[in-house]
Amino acid sequence: MATITDVAHRANVSKNTVSRYLNNRGYISKETRGKIQDAIDSLHYQPNQIARSLYNNKTNIVGLVIPDVIQPFFATMTSKIEDQLAAHDYRMILCNTMHSSEKEKKCISMLTANKVDGIIIGSHSIDINYKNIEAPIVALDRDLADTIPVVNANHTQGGILASEAVIGHGCKNVAQIIGNTKVRSPSIQRHRVFAEQMRAHGIKCSTFELKLNQFEFSTYLGMADHFFASNPGIDGIFASDLVILAFQRTALEHGVKVPDDLFMCGYDGSFVYQTGYPPFPTIIQPFDQLAKTLVDVLIKRMNHDSDVRLTYTLPVRMSDGHETDNFDPDLEPTLMPLFPDCGTAN
Amino acid sequence: MATITDVAHRANVSKNTVSRYLNNRGYISKETRGKIQDAIDSLHYQPNQIARSLYNNKTNIVGLVIPDVIQPFFATMTSKIEDQLAAHDYRMILCNTMHSSEKEKKCISMLTANKVDGIIIGSHSIDINYKNIEAPIVALDRDLADTIPVVNANHTQGGILASEAVIGHGCKNVAQIIGNTKVRSPSIQRHRVFAEQMRAHGIKCSTFELKLNQFEFSTYLGMADHFFASNPGIDGIFASDLVILAFQRTALEHGVKVPDDLFMCGYDGSFVYQTGYPPFPTIIQPFDQLAKTLVDVLIKRMNHDSDVRLTYTLPVRMSDGHETDNFDPDLEPTLMPLFPDCGTAN
Repeated sequence: MATITDVAHRANVSKNTVSRYLNNRGYISKETRGKIQDAIDSLHYQPNQIARSLYNNKTNIVGLVIPDVIQPFFATMTSKIEDQLAAHDYRMILCNTMHSSEKEKKCISMLTANKVDGIIIGSHSIDINYKNIEAPIVALDRDLADTIPVVNANHTQGGILASEAVIGHGCKNVAQIIGNTKVRSPSIQRHRVFAEQMRAHGIKCSTFELKLNQFEFSTYLGMADHFFASNPGIDGIFASDLVILAFQRTALEHGVKVPDDLFMCGYDGSFVYQTGYPPFPTIIQPFDQLAKTLVDVLIKRMNHDSDVRLTYTLPVRMSDGHETDNFDPDLEPTLMPLFPDCGTAN
Repeated sequence: MATITDVAHRANVSKNTVSRYLNNRGYISKETRGKIQDAIDSLHYQPNQIARSLYNNKTNIVGLVIPDVIQPFFATMTSKIEDQLAAHDYRMILCNTMHSSEKEKKCISMLTANKVDGIIIGSHSIDINYKNIEAPIVALDRDLADTIPVVNANHTQGGILASEAVIGHGCKNVAQIIGNTKVRSPSIQRHRVFAEQMRAHGIKCSTFELKLNQFEFSTYLGMADHFFASNPGIDGIFASDLVILAFQRTALEHGVKVPDDLFMCGYDGSFVYQTGYPPFPTIIQPFDQLAKTLVDVLIKRMNHDSDVRLTYTLPVRMSDGHETDNFDPDLEPTLMPLFPDCGTAN
């Protein structure tokens, strides 16, 4: 493996000059820069990033701490955050906490031991003191501490849009299913607003709180089955998309007319809301904008830029479930006239 | 922030003894170990992992390179791989390549610069020479090089199970939709076997190849719409779960009787296959076993253990789509008698 000495030798400059080139320090003539880069390329020289991290006190690594990347909201955010970080030349360590405060503590401890430049936290454990963490932090939809910026969708707007959909359909007796309130999140606001709207319009509204650690979609199906048996007479449901899909499937299995007799309104808007039929309206979180804002704010924090607010609230929008992208003929699947190696077609 | 000197002082031992304790080197009495750990805990001492990585030539970080974590197969694998790695005290850098060889090259280059201990690769670009990568590698369902172990589901078994389902239903004219064949993956085998079975049973089988870069579920919906218009007469479809969900939703929108007139068989078995109604049979990949095997094999490689095969093929199973976990009453959502702060209920 090539070393910095090999590069210096090939480019006919000193090791110090190569080091300055790699770390972008001091003046180096264009000609010399060219010679060094040529030497790097031809030798396939790989700087030792660890040594550089130690030297520069900067790792170019950011941690992302979330409950579980299987959940479509977090899968989508992870993908878009990774993309934004990569565009700024940061790499991303992913930690799934599974709502375990032990696991979360261990993650955070490891991230700080590895001197990551910053951490985006979308998880929350009540027995962690986030102020004590020795790294710049930005929160995704979690209230961690009053000094940590939080980026989230406009859940007030979301609650109003959901209630308008339910009222517009003519529901009289609705249920909303909320995440466990041990997790302190701004998203509770959408359910508070929804409950207020229902009360203001004389619509009965029952609020159900999910137990923690419910990740498996199949447990949502079992829960939905039991729910319908215990709560006849519900004619509308407001919940996250995954919960809605479970409730919709279960309702259809029981021969319930959806949406006529049971109206569903979802929340999140990751791809998964489009898998159900019949389509249901959902409040779409601004995934791209959330990711961009999270990374922009974190970079400011990492650069000690004081032009940082404590809350960033981004607009949501409603989809009636019938949207599909205009079909792009370039994406049409091609027909393979024969399957490779399979001889003649039938 | 506490230093190793502070710990030594608090524990009344030398810095060298603390260093040996942290790196598990040499004999230290139980009493002394206790004093050191107490000092570490009370001072909240955080070893500098970067310095240790440089010293030990080991980072305890593994890279995971995949096309896109939004895709449920990869979200599920990412979650389970992270869990397995964490159990072995490894952290995971996640890279989404989006099927871009530029992005993949950049990822891999960064991972080796950061001296990750190993890399799990579930992506594939034809213009990368994987043999040249200076790190232990294990492949997830990709044929990267003849010296790189690959772990995948038993796609031959999968193809046979799918064909049995289709034959059992009485289909006469089926379509199978496959991933882009530029991506060299053992999973092509399930489609080869399926095509052979169809031919052997006198069932017409047309194979359609997806274009690359089709991540958006909404493009699958548009594609399905166009597909049905161009291919009337198809009475069975075999594809991955996500594609099946798109085709099923589109078929239902067109009033097609599913599964009576159009039978669907899926592949993968992540949670998403359960969101559709009516339920469809799917071949379930052994996610837990895949993740455990990938990590076990990678650890062997990282430890220069030669007891490593080049292929690990793990059994799949069929689900008819009607499975749900037995409902656990502990997971029943609780009813909140009032929504907090909302005054009296209706």
